[in-house]
Amino acid sequence: MSHLYFGGADVVELAEKYGTPLYITDEKRLIENFRSYRTAFDDYDYNTDIYYAVKANGNLAILKLLAREGAGADVFSTGELQLTKLAGIERRKTLFNGNSKSDDDLIAAVESGVRVSVDSYDELNALASVSEQLGAEVEIAIRVNPDISADVNPKIATGLKESKFGIPYKDVMKICRAAHSMRNISLRGLHCHIGSQILDVSVFGDAADKMLNLVASLHEAGIELEFVDLGGGLGIGYRPEERAIAPTPAELRDAISPAFERKKAAGIAPKLILEPGRSIVGSASILVSRVNAVKHAYKNFVAIDAGFNLLIRPVMYDAYHEVVVANRYSEPCTELYTIVGPICEAGDIIARDRLLPEVKRGDLIAILDTGAYGFSMSSQYNGRPRCAEVLVRDGHADLIRERESFEDLLRNQKVPARLR
Amino acid sequence: MSHLYFGGADVVELAEKYGTPLYITDEKRLIENFRSYRTAFDDYDYNTDIYYAVKANGNLAILKLLAREGAGADVFSTGELQLTKLAGIERRKTLFNGNSKSDDDLIAAVESGVRVSVDSYDELNALASVSEQLGAEVEIAIRVNPDISADVNPKIATGLKESKFGIPYKDVMKICRAAHSMRNISLRGLHCHIGSQILDVSVFGDAADKMLNLVASLHEAGIELEFVDLGGGLGIGYRPEERAIAPTPAELRDAISPAFERKKAAGIAPKLILEPGRSIVGSASILVSRVNAVKHAYKNFVAIDAGFNLLIRPVMYDAYHEVVVANRYSEPCTELYTIVGPICEAGDIIARDRLLPEVKRGDLIAILDTGAYGFSMSSQYNGRPRCAEVLVRDGHADLIRERESFEDLLRNQKVPARLR
Repeated sequence: MSHLYFGGADVVELAEKYGTPLYITDEKRLIENFRSYRTAFDDYDYNTDIYYAVKANGNLAILKLLAREGAGADVFSTGELQLTKLAGIERRKTLFNGNSKSDDDLIAAVESGVRVSVDSYDELNALASVSEQLGAEVEIAIRVNPDISADVNPKIATGLKESKFGIPYKDVMKICRAAHSMRNISLRGLHCHIGSQILDVSVFGDAADKMLNLVASLHEAGIELEFVDLGGGLGIGYRPEERAIAPTPAELRDAISPAFERKKAAGIAPKLILEPGRSIVGSASILVSRVNAVKHAYKNFVAIDAGFNLLIRPVMYDAYHEVVVANRYSEPCTELYTIVGPICEAGDIIARDRLLPEVKRGDLIAILDTGAYGFSMSSQYNGRPRCAEVLVRDGHADLIRERESFEDLLRNQKVPARLR
Repeated sequence: MSHLYFGGADVVELAEKYGTPLYITDEKRLIENFRSYRTAFDDYDYNTDIYYAVKANGNLAILKLLAREGAGADVFSTGELQLTKLAGIERRKTLFNGNSKSDDDLIAAVESGVRVSVDSYDELNALASVSEQLGAEVEIAIRVNPDISADVNPKIATGLKESKFGIPYKDVMKICRAAHSMRNISLRGLHCHIGSQILDVSVFGDAADKMLNLVASLHEAGIELEFVDLGGGLGIGYRPEERAIAPTPAELRDAISPAFERKKAAGIAPKLILEPGRSIVGSASILVSRVNAVKHAYKNFVAIDAGFNLLIRPVMYDAYHEVVVANRYSEPCTELYTIVGPICEAGDIIARDRLLPEVKRGDLIAILDTGAYGFSMSSQYNGRPRCAEVLVRDGHADLIRERESFEDLLRNQKVPARLR
């Protein structure tokens, strides 16, 4: 019985030591994924910053590693802003995004000195008045709805005309003029995001064209911008057949660069910002789970101790994750199994109809490529404390999140005196 | 500007006092919903127990209220079991359900003296060996897959042949015989659950028939059962057009009773257990959220401070919730709005194309009927601490869950020394 190794560590040993379910992140792969962006874009004529999308995985140790590599941050809330500050990510390389910011969020952004991506007139006006009250200037980008359709799950197709995000393309000039004229607002860039898990990079070229056309129009109107932020969205190879076609950062650069080249010739050369999340952390983690039951029913079910409480992607987006039996890694795959979680919903299915070695109660299932939108979307649903996380480097593991206990289900709960 | 009242309290005042987002539970409605089960089934010839489905809403104050009313509990994890013990729910009226129980879960069940609903041979064998090790007898039910199709969202249609839950109908006699012969196992009942949010109660009659036929067959085989647990699943009127047709507990009783009457004549009269969740807590809570932006784009968007981090039902199940403007409750509805949350996903839409009074930044949106599968499925996604909950009785509010803070995002996180 051979074991799966991840980050140089024996996954079976880690499961024994730290218990299951367990997220394991491979530090080396994480760093490699980030550096592949740097390598692709450092060669590039344009000044490019990589702002890691914190929502994908906001673990503090992971943020610290990325901060040391020079990553900026795309944050979507005051909570994420605070995490990135703790992690040491430069505030000048932090963009506060979001379509629904409260006054408290805007105050936090202005006080922190980060840039704000403005999603609506309401937000622009609120931000202007917050900045004035605080006596501070705030640098902003306008979030543009580019009206571009990426071929992805509709729940994450953020660049469609109907999407809740951004200013309609036709209205962007107008809001930029309004922002440009405001006292405490400094318009610095345009921002868009066309979707997530995108495998065909050509849409990024379309987005670059559309955004740079706006930059050129603003230039003609006397408004100079410093940057264009094309968001994130680069897909990764979750399925075996996707691994060969999953785009690299270099392919993303090649899709974007013609648009920049054309505008450079016309004297328009804004800095480029990218906001990758999944393509940096996705492949860097696995989720390891113990088999509690194998049942031969209408299908052969393998019931494990991790469900959509810890990994919601399969039920939420019909997403695919490879699974392997960590303690029978090289045994021949002879049986067809459907891997299900412990949650009380028929939809709590992690993987359907997978060919695996014969599985027994007590075996360990490793769910691959779970670094992005895994723990970050976890809940305590069904009264399940959330799991631990470890970071592995060269076979050595460090605990980066302790397993929750029953007390974490009770935390913050209060029983009125009359009910005690 | 008139205000929405809930549980006798001014919702606008509660939002000011406790902040937003805020879950508000109406104690009176909760109790009424539970008592409507008791009233319907107390008249009934058969001994009926109502086991509240903790997964719908595991707030401790709510569990305490239901415990005082005599509710039992359907628990799906050791965490839920511990919550019900703290709440004072009788262990004799607690059933430990679930398709994926670890040894620790089985030990907790046996040590607590609760009954266990067994989902597989693997579980039966593991439970027998745990009971033997502990020198205790454990009372069980067999979870049956009744192969019944309820007309509900497939993610919550738990009684289909393909479902992960239960023993295939044709195999039930066999596993019952096996359980009956085991030393530390005492087979007491059969259990099924056919789905959730069921509006046509006739399927419960079908389920009762199928289950009682099994009880009769077991009786002929010399195995006497004490109870049949038909699970939960009664739907509620989320949509205006559903309010008139949403079934009552009395209608559920009327759908079930013919099957029991027929078997009673043949001398088969097991006790009935029901496991309602949604129909008890669903209508008893609202989620109140502040408007951060109104944006006129392809649609008119109202961006609020609660999204699928706090209420995942709309994006997960395409579920409908009524929304009202709590601070403009009686103003005429003249505008069409799509209500969206603050989460960085295109799918974070709470309600589509709703006619409401004209909405402005700072207004309060109340999302109705959010007591079930609301907070219980919440997450900290996008770095958002989870919200507070209050319990209201006769206009007086008690805080039953404190709002999380940034520290709750950091809790349990550990940064390895080499990264500090």
